[in-house]
Amino acid sequence: MTNAIPTPMMRPGLRATEAAALDWASRVFTEMPVAGLLAARPLRCDPQRGRMTVAFQARREFCNLMGSVQGGMLSAMLDLVMSFAALATLEDGYVVPSLEMKTSFVAPARAGEITGDGMLVRKGRTIAFMEGRLVDPQGNLLATASATGQIRPRPAVAP
Amino acid sequence: MTNAIPTPMMRPGLRATEAAALDWASRVFTEMPVAGLLAARPLRCDPQRGRMTVAFQARREFCNLMGSVQGGMLSAMLDLVMSFAALATLEDGYVVPSLEMKTSFVAPARAGEITGDGMLVRKGRTIAFMEGRLVDPQGNLLATASATGQIRPRPAVAP
Repeated sequence: MTNAIPTPMMRPGLRATEAAALDWASRVFTEMPVAGLLAARPLRCDPQRGRMTVAFQARREFCNLMGSVQGGMLSAMLDLVMSFAALATLEDGYVVPSLEMKTSFVAPARAGEITGDGMLVRKGRTIAFMEGRLVDPQGNLLATASATGQIRPRPAVAP
Repeated sequence: MTNAIPTPMMRPGLRATEAAALDWASRVFTEMPVAGLLAARPLRCDPQRGRMTVAFQARREFCNLMGSVQGGMLSAMLDLVMSFAALATLEDGYVVPSLEMKTSFVAPARAGEITGDGMLVRKGRTIAFMEGRLVDPQGNLLATASATGQIRPRPAVAP
């Protein structure tokens, strides 16, 4: 995974440090129901380069007939961490919903802790390209993904 | 979406009628934790052609910052309905975990009922190609997907 985006210029509302970015992510996760379902917890963030690392907790109820975490539920973790890699580089008040997403399930994932890395690959005015990966606590690669997101203002009131 | 597979020969354990297939799906859903999370309920099934329709209930906790169902959670619904389109054509005792999956999120999805259609496009000895789509209660298209799955015996005991 290469990152071709230049360091963005600082703008109002941007998070200057990793500590500020982690504080921002923790706060936004509490407003985001699916972050609660996935027990998302921000671990690392580089708001200049658009990199985000999030710990998830895969519940037993995320599992399939083989007793491993269903692929779609891994996609949910990847979707979250990729969108936050993009969001971290933006001023407050934006969202980056995915337009499309491709996931490769490279190894079975067990219930328990799963760590996700998201990376902003390229950011335009309204479109962001992102990549992500998930690993288990031993660092084994579980899944990789790429996604295209649309950058737009967050709706004032959630419907 | 075209379906090029020929009608398979009947083999032991295969479900001959739609009623038998729906009974089978309801039973297997109860053994599959993620089917419970998604409140999956089989609606229609053509076990000869590899077609499956499933009703899901998207909870509020599946939603993102915009108040719509997170894309990854839609992928979880699509993953389930696509794998069951393939499973419906197989004898008991198989699983079809996804190797890779691509989803397009064509419209925001609200919490509540979402209906998924899965279709087996082509089945080999160990590989299945599938397609899927989700619609809202008004029939509006929400998301489309394609996936590649691996056909293999279900592990004797879930880990």
